[in-house]
Amino acid sequence: MAKDIVLTGDRPTGPLHLGHYVGSLQNRILLQESVTQFVMIADAQALTDHAEEPEKIKENVFQVALDYLAVGISPEKSTMFIQSQLPALCELTQYYLNLITWNRLKHNPTVKQEIVQKGYGENVPAGFMVYPVSQAADITAFKANLVPVGEDQIPMIEQTNEIVRHFNRIYKTKVLVEAKAIVPKIARLPGIDGKAKMSKSLQNGIYLSDESDVLAKKVKSMYTDPNHLRVEDPGQVEGNPVFIYLDAFDPDKEGVLKMKEHYTRGGLGDSIVKKRLLEVLESFLDPIRKRRKQFASDPAEVMRILQVGTEKAREVSEQTLYEAKAAMGINYFG
Amino acid sequence: MAKDIVLTGDRPTGPLHLGHYVGSLQNRILLQESVTQFVMIADAQALTDHAEEPEKIKENVFQVALDYLAVGISPEKSTMFIQSQLPALCELTQYYLNLITWNRLKHNPTVKQEIVQKGYGENVPAGFMVYPVSQAADITAFKANLVPVGEDQIPMIEQTNEIVRHFNRIYKTKVLVEAKAIVPKIARLPGIDGKAKMSKSLQNGIYLSDESDVLAKKVKSMYTDPNHLRVEDPGQVEGNPVFIYLDAFDPDKEGVLKMKEHYTRGGLGDSIVKKRLLEVLESFLDPIRKRRKQFASDPAEVMRILQVGTEKAREVSEQTLYEAKAAMGINYFG
Repeated sequence: MAKDIVLTGDRPTGPLHLGHYVGSLQNRILLQESVTQFVMIADAQALTDHAEEPEKIKENVFQVALDYLAVGISPEKSTMFIQSQLPALCELTQYYLNLITWNRLKHNPTVKQEIVQKGYGENVPAGFMVYPVSQAADITAFKANLVPVGEDQIPMIEQTNEIVRHFNRIYKTKVLVEAKAIVPKIARLPGIDGKAKMSKSLQNGIYLSDESDVLAKKVKSMYTDPNHLRVEDPGQVEGNPVFIYLDAFDPDKEGVLKMKEHYTRGGLGDSIVKKRLLEVLESFLDPIRKRRKQFASDPAEVMRILQVGTEKAREVSEQTLYEAKAAMGINYFG
Repeated sequence: MAKDIVLTGDRPTGPLHLGHYVGSLQNRILLQESVTQFVMIADAQALTDHAEEPEKIKENVFQVALDYLAVGISPEKSTMFIQSQLPALCELTQYYLNLITWNRLKHNPTVKQEIVQKGYGENVPAGFMVYPVSQAADITAFKANLVPVGEDQIPMIEQTNEIVRHFNRIYKTKVLVEAKAIVPKIARLPGIDGKAKMSKSLQNGIYLSDESDVLAKKVKSMYTDPNHLRVEDPGQVEGNPVFIYLDAFDPDKEGVLKMKEHYTRGGLGDSIVKKRLLEVLESFLDPIRKRRKQFASDPAEVMRILQVGTEKAREVSEQTLYEAKAAMGINYFG
C-alpha cells in the first residue's frame, strides 16, 4: 500500500509558539516517521495580507525554519520548502480559478470569518479572497491525501475537494487526489492570559525561542483561576491555563493528577503550580533552544536545507502540473 | 532612444476574420517594422470562460498561428508565443492580486459589461473576474509601454497602471512600466448582417480562411441599405457594410468614391457593388489563403515557430519576474 502523503505548514508571520507545538509540530514529528510529509513555509500566502512587508516575511521564513529544525522536524524525513519558489503552484491556481465561481469564493465560511477578524470591510485584497484556491493548488500539487488542520479550516479542504472532483470530471482524469482533513485532538493551547488562542497581536504566547528569563516572567504572569484568592481556597483546574499547559507538557502524569487534586481541595498556591510548570517548560524548551542556536549559528546550512527541500518539492509539483496540463491537453511542446 | 515595446494578441476562441484584420492585424504588420512586438496567443485567458473545452482552445491556437503567419506577422520581426507556457505570468498575477482589492475588481467596467453579455449572473468563474490582473501580468512581464486595444478595453490598461504604480511604490522600485493604450482609428468592421461587430456566435463574419465559394456566398448575402429597393432608387452609403468594407479593402480609392456617388444618386444596383467587393476581397484573401495552406501543410514548422517565440517570450518574462521578486526581496536562493 502506498504511503500516505501529508501537506502541512505555516504562514511565516512570526516565530512559532507552544500553541504551534501542541497543535501541529508534535504531530509532524510523529507523522514524519510513517508518511511522506511536505512541510510548507507559506510565504506567498502570508503576502496575501502582508503585501507591504515582504522583508518581514522573509526574515520569518528563516525563523520558522529554525523552529522546525529545533523541534526535530528532520530534513531527512520531511520535505521542508518555501512556497513562493514553486511556480507550479501559481499555474495550478490559475487553472483552478476557472473551476470555481466567484460567488462560491465569497461564501467560504473560513474566509468570511477572517475578513471580519481582520476588519477588511470592502477592502479585502483580491489575493486574500482567492487564497483557498491557492491552498487547493498547494494540497493537490503534492497529491496529499491527508491535511492536518484546525476545525475552522475544514471548509478549505471541502473546497479543495470540490475543485479536485470538478477538474477530474471535466478533464476525464484521475490526476488530482481528494484530501482528508485530520483535526488534532488538542488543537489549541490557550494564551498565558487565558484567552482561547496564543496570538502575536495579543502578546500572550510562549515562543519556542523564548530565553529562560522571558519564560520565567511569562509563567509567573500567567492567568489562573481568578477565584483562587487565598492558598487555602479550593481552586478550579478546568480552563486553568497553568494546568492545561501541565497536561500538555509535564511527562509526570501522576504528579499532575496529584497537584490537580490538591489544588481542587484547596491548600495549593498558584506559585507552587507555576514553579512546577516553569521547570517542565524549561526542560522542554532548553534542548530546543540549544538546537535552535546551533542551527542559527550556521545560516548558510539552514538555507541549504531549505534549498534541497524546495528543489525536491518543486520537482513533485512540476510533475503534477505536467500531468494536469496533459489531462487538459495543453502541453504544447511535449 | 529605446524602442517601444508592444504587447498584443488574441484569445484563441475561433479563426480570425476581416474584423480582426482591420482592427488589429494590419496594425501589427506595420508596427513590427519599428517596435519590439510580442504577439500573445492568450489560451490561458480563453480558458477563463471556456474551461471545459481545452481541446478546442488548443486547436484554435494552431489556427490563429496560421492566420498570423498567413497575413504577414513575421516570426523574424514579432515574437509570437503561447500564454499558458509562461509560468512567470501566473507568478506575477499571484503577487498583483495582493495589490488590488476584491471590490475594485468587481467594479471593473469592462468585466461588468462582459458578465452581463455572457449571462453569468452569480456564476462568474473566479478566473474570469481576476483576468484583468492576469492581463496586468501579461503587459508588465514584457515591460510593454504600448498596448493596442479597443475603446472598451481602456479600463483594463488603467487597472494595469494602478497595479504598476502600487507595486513600484511599495517595493521602492522602477521594475514595472506603465502602459499606454493605443486605440486604432477603425476599431471595428460591421458584420455582413450590418450588426456592429463580426462575431462567431452571430455567424456574420468573413474569415481569413474562407474559401472563394464561401466568400462569394457571404458577400452576396450582405446587408446593404434596406431602403434601396430598386436599382434606380438613391441609396445610402453611410453605415452600409458593403461600402465600409470597400473603404477598408479597395486599393482604388477613386473608384470607390465614384461608386459611392453613383449609389447615392441612384442607378447603381447592390449586385454591381457587391461584385466589386467580391473582386477586392478575393484578391486580398487569395494570397493569404495560399500562404495559410502552405503553412498548414507543415504543422511541425508552425509549432517550431511558436516554440521559438514562446522560449524567447519566456526568457523575457522570467527576467521581469526575477527583477520583481528581487524588488520584493523574495529571491531566496539567489
